[in-house]
Parts: sequence; structure tokens; C-alpha cells
Amino acid sequence: MASFCSRCGTALTQKVPDGDDRTRGVCDGCGFIHYDNPRVVVGALATDAQGRVLLCKRAIAPRVGYWTLPAGFLELNETAAEGAARETMEEAGATIVDMRPLTTFDIPRIGQIYMMFRARLAGPEMAAGTESLEVGLYEWADIPWDDLAFAAVRFTLERFAIDREAGVERLHSGTIQIATERDKRASGWPRSILVDEVVVG
Amino acid sequence: MASFCSRCGTALTQKVPDGDDRTRGVCDGCGFIHYDNPRVVVGALATDAQGRVLLCKRAIAPRVGYWTLPAGFLELNETAAEGAARETMEEAGATIVDMRPLTTFDIPRIGQIYMMFRARLAGPEMAAGTESLEVGLYEWADIPWDDLAFAAVRFTLERFAIDREAGVERLHSGTIQIATERDKRASGWPRSILVDEVVVG
Repeated sequence: MASFCSRCGTALTQKVPDGDDRTRGVCDGCGFIHYDNPRVVVGALATDAQGRVLLCKRAIAPRVGYWTLPAGFLELNETAAEGAARETMEEAGATIVDMRPLTTFDIPRIGQIYMMFRARLAGPEMAAGTESLEVGLYEWADIPWDDLAFAAVRFTLERFAIDREAGVERLHSGTIQIATERDKRASGWPRSILVDEVVVG
Repeated sequence: MASFCSRCGTALTQKVPDGDDRTRGVCDGCGFIHYDNPRVVVGALATDAQGRVLLCKRAIAPRVGYWTLPAGFLELNETAAEGAARETMEEAGATIVDMRPLTTFDIPRIGQIYMMFRARLAGPEMAAGTESLEVGLYEWADIPWDDLAFAAVRFTLERFAIDREAGVERLHSGTIQIATERDKRASGWPRSILVDEVVVG
């Protein structure tokens, strides 16, 4: 949350602006209102011609040493698919094509929306970027399910598998929440559950 | 773009941080790096039992007096579907249920992603909010196509119509760009075109 005005440097007052219904940082100097909005994380479940999945072992916090699909924050002036391709190049040195929406997950607790794409690897080139310790192509049976970095990665891989079994491509959306003790016993995933799932297609 | 540090109020230096590859506002006082990220617009194409569509006539800039689907910026700590329902209540005084993803549009030129949902009106109640001059339920043949406020609204209505004709529900994603002179002649929509469209389902 901003403490000082990003336009003029004045200390902000936290209050509800006229005509609004929630507290924002308001500048008593220049009048500028500061909005904090959720950020979009974009990434890819990329496969090669044999159906193997590209995974990266994380070299940076959080979850160093755990496996992830290439993903990161969407930047200004790029599309979500372009961002997913950029992250895949940055983290795995790989070029992807044919990006198609696979999952969208809300994580309201941390103000994030994940948009994950199916994609096809354009060639065999790959190399661990500075944010990765290691990258590799995994057969489905060899995916390190117990060492995945994030719930969104696990849920994306699972939905991809469901569609592959059914021979269809659909969009899967839902909300990721912290698991209660009861949920944890039911789901097997240690920290998070997917609720309000909607499947389109 | 931020000129002053939101944490400590120091004037920012625009430079590429260590290990990064694009220019950010960096604070030489406290070291904080300021990221500008795209914002998410959420909204709904809500229909009643007769298939009529809820539209709002805008009372605020931009595009005062033109018609829109209820939509606005996603807030922190809400899901995209919750945001679409909140905007529909704020702008049209209407309660919606059964939100299902319909379109996602990137608009990289202005750093926005639209996420529009299909939804069902829960009852007959509606009332113009402070951002609307008028709200109404429109039969398909009566939609004011020439007086729509935004390209994302037009493209969402069009995709909904395509699915309805085909008797399916799919996700339609794509990128909205400014039309070239040639595109304008081809598309009929005065300012924008949809490119790189992908249909899921």
C-alpha cells in the first residue's frame, strides 16, 4: 500500500474518496487517488511432440528448489499470450507457439489472477534461465507432483490431464483458497484448494 | 508512471534494475522498485429468462451517453466473477448469478485485460447507478450497435451471439488493436479490431 504520492511525493491520507466506497491513498497535495489493483500472472503448460511437459526448478524465492510451469507477472504493453511466451523464454530458454487459454485462477487473498496457456514447443532448445536451477521435459508419469512450487501449477497440470483423457480442450476457471484443516485431509494438496470451478467448452 | 517513491517519498530514478531488462522507477533512498502492471476490467453480459441483455447508458467519461455492459476495474481481494457482480450492482442495480467466462481481451495499448462473463439475472430489479444515465433489457434485435461505448463490449456481444446461434458456450479470447484505415473499411467498427482470436471449447 502506498504511503506517499507517486506524482508529487506528499504523504498520503487513507480515506474513502468522494463517490467511492473503499479506502484509498488520497493525496492532499495534488489530489491524486492511488488505486491498488490485482496483478496478472501469465504462464504456459508447453508440450513437445511426444506430449512431454516443460517444467522449471526454481532458483529464486519463493519455493526455491520446487518445480513450476514457466510463469510470471504480465508487463505493460504485452498480451497475456506474449507474456507467457516471454516468461517461457526467460525461465526455460524455450520458444512456444499456439498459445490457447487453459486455466484462469483467482487468488484474491494475494491479489493475483493466473492466466495459464496450453502451448507447443517450437523446437528442442531449452536452457535454465537465471530464475531456474534446471529445466526439463517430463513424461506425465514422471511429473514431480510432491515437489510442485504452487497450487496454481498443480491445478493447471491436473486440468490439462483431465482434458487430455477426455480428448477435449476447455477453459477451467476457479478460485484458489487456503485449505482448512478439513480440506487438507480431503484434497491431499498441503495448503490450497480450488473452489467455484467453472469449465467452459 | 510514478515520479516519487510510494514508500518513502523520494524522487525516483528511471533505470533498469540489476537483473531486470526494462526501465522501472527505482528509489535511490530506500531501494524500492516500482512496477506498473496491466489492470483487469471485469464485467457481465447478463440475460433474463427471455434472453434479453442488460445494458447501461454511461453517465461518466469516457463515452458519456453510449451503451455498455456493466464493467469496471477489478479490486483487490475479490474474484473476477465477484467483481463482475459488484459492477453490475453498482451500475445497474441488478443481481447476477451463474457467472461463466465468455471473453478475455488483451488491450496492450492501454495496459488492460477484459474478462467478461455470461451471467443470469437473479430477478427483475434494476436501477441506474451513479455511473449510468439509464439501464434496460434489450431484445437482440434492439441492441444499439451504433451507440456502443467500447470495442470490448461490441466484440463480447458478437461472440455471445455466435455461440447462441451455434447452441454452445465457449471462451473467446483475442487482442484489441487500433484499426488501420484498411481495417476500418473492412470491419465496420470505427476504431478497433480484434486480432489473434482463439476460441476454446
